[in-house]
Amino acid sequence: MRATVIHAPHDIRVEEVPDPRVQEPTDVVVRVLRACICGSDLWAYRGESARQPGQRIGHEFLGVVEEAGSGVAGFGPGDLVVAPFVWSDGTCEYCAEGLQTSCPQGGFWGSVGSDGGQGEAVRVPFADGTLVKLPAAAASDDRLLTGLLALSDVLGTGHHAAVGAGVRRGSTVAVVGDGAVGLCGVLAARRLGAERIIALGRHRARTDIAKTFGATDIVAERGDAAVAAVRELTGGQGAHAVIEAVGTEQSMRTAVGIARDGGAIGYVGVPHGSGTGLDLSVLFNRNIALRGGVAPVRAYIPDLLPDVLDGTIDPSPVFDVTVGLDGVPEGYRAMDGRTALKVLVKP
Amino acid sequence: MRATVIHAPHDIRVEEVPDPRVQEPTDVVVRVLRACICGSDLWAYRGESARQPGQRIGHEFLGVVEEAGSGVAGFGPGDLVVAPFVWSDGTCEYCAEGLQTSCPQGGFWGSVGSDGGQGEAVRVPFADGTLVKLPAAAASDDRLLTGLLALSDVLGTGHHAAVGAGVRRGSTVAVVGDGAVGLCGVLAARRLGAERIIALGRHRARTDIAKTFGATDIVAERGDAAVAAVRELTGGQGAHAVIEAVGTEQSMRTAVGIARDGGAIGYVGVPHGSGTGLDLSVLFNRNIALRGGVAPVRAYIPDLLPDVLDGTIDPSPVFDVTVGLDGVPEGYRAMDGRTALKVLVKP
Repeated sequence: MRATVIHAPHDIRVEEVPDPRVQEPTDVVVRVLRACICGSDLWAYRGESARQPGQRIGHEFLGVVEEAGSGVAGFGPGDLVVAPFVWSDGTCEYCAEGLQTSCPQGGFWGSVGSDGGQGEAVRVPFADGTLVKLPAAAASDDRLLTGLLALSDVLGTGHHAAVGAGVRRGSTVAVVGDGAVGLCGVLAARRLGAERIIALGRHRARTDIAKTFGATDIVAERGDAAVAAVRELTGGQGAHAVIEAVGTEQSMRTAVGIARDGGAIGYVGVPHGSGTGLDLSVLFNRNIALRGGVAPVRAYIPDLLPDVLDGTIDPSPVFDVTVGLDGVPEGYRAMDGRTALKVLVKP
Repeated sequence: MRATVIHAPHDIRVEEVPDPRVQEPTDVVVRVLRACICGSDLWAYRGESARQPGQRIGHEFLGVVEEAGSGVAGFGPGDLVVAPFVWSDGTCEYCAEGLQTSCPQGGFWGSVGSDGGQGEAVRVPFADGTLVKLPAAAASDDRLLTGLLALSDVLGTGHHAAVGAGVRRGSTVAVVGDGAVGLCGVLAARRLGAERIIALGRHRARTDIAKTFGATDIVAERGDAAVAAVRELTGGQGAHAVIEAVGTEQSMRTAVGIARDGGAIGYVGVPHGSGTGLDLSVLFNRNIALRGGVAPVRAYIPDLLPDVLDGTIDPSPVFDVTVGLDGVPEGYRAMDGRTALKVLVKP
């Protein structure tokens, strides 16, 4: 089959690789209908996260089960399924409590020896613990299918940030990061009942989506000016709940600066300097909690899926460019250059 | 009156200072019956927290109201009262929600221009918002009075750590720090229903108190060995709830190391390097929350007071040395040298 391979920073290729096949009784093979490129893939693309030359890449996909191992109970050929960005056994203590990202048998798509999502097909370990079935009818609804793809990462990750930030009915929320995850954070915050959602961003195409998703205020300033603007909007206090969806020193510094005393920062931006932006004395003096991390998306899909299916939330606008598999390298360039928000891949 | 004054690092003196008097209608003057020396006072004593020469010191006290301003509704001469370590107006939005440490009109005893707790008397601003009345009968019960003094800081701070760490019925808790706050964290964790409480410490006198307070396991190792020991005690996973009651890089590193994935660190050690011990990538990958800060003790006193009064919890064993006011400088030396756990002052 053909799949995306990363050879070196800025060297992403689509090439022939071995066809995936069932290796363990608990495996299935999924033929990919939709995949996409994640902001976190850019860390590898830019060489800021190490990859071995030849590793696959891509961790978001949905598709149709092609072959199922003898030990798979919940899925059979023809089933439409979505995969969270981490596989997990579904049976351990962590899986039972909804922290599948800590499953000792879990792993990331595209890690050494595993398929990535940006390819024609994927071998899925622990299919019963990992995959979630989607209604077959969704396969013929292009927009819905695209929205459902967001369940594999960005929507659940935005939701994790909102949960970590303690968003509840009536909350004032501020969102740092105008990428797909930040925008999904806006969507998740609205879904959880936030009364006011302040989105930080200066790119019109993105802030327009933020408004569609429920943002009540847009702050275009950056750094100290952004902190001042959010404080002015909140009677000087800052936001109860802050979503940090970038992971840099600057973004975390801003998140701390705009948080209200006694509030919380829900952080889901993969840390790339954000630890340095975290002044513990400030958090301490102002009792600001920090809660987040790699999102246990698998746990959230059952909650979020009905709302996507019935149209209560529609994350599909975060995908603004569509490519075929051959277009994946160009998709990386577009996201790296911020000319694309999030690239949808139709293999 | 006579009160404790810090002139320079390691230069603590008891000397004659102006008598406190009611200055604002909302003030009262409290004659101090019991005060004490806090682990956090040692940061100033050691010169690691800046103080202006001549500042007062001490932020824990209880006593009898001597004089009340005309605007004070809740207290009058003769009332036995305990003061939390921060005064607060009791009327602002933060006070209303129980985050009195963020009250814009609040302040710390011993800050420039205010009395400290380690003296004969204290002018208390915003008495109605700050003080809590105690039953008059407690004044004649020496042990109870000492236990009640813990409400001014260490008990509420230990409780704040336990709350931040998410301690609930059945939790496994680990406590980093064998000072009075850490020990009160043990007591608070047991009160909240923790099933297992692992106290880290190697000083027999302190670990004996930890056992009295409810610790089920003692870990005498330090650093990596402590992490290994706690993991061994918890089936490799670590503790759901970790109390960090020191504030140094090493203590925070240990706290992170012994936390279970998906758990939380409740930190109340005033940060002196602990930010450096916080590896955000580890917190991120393992979804460990960080929640704590300067404890809003005023909010907790009404909850904790009945349990101290009826003997359900007795924090008095954390006080192991008693001095008069003249003995305060010697008390600092003893705590700095760790020959005293916590010094009680009877002016």
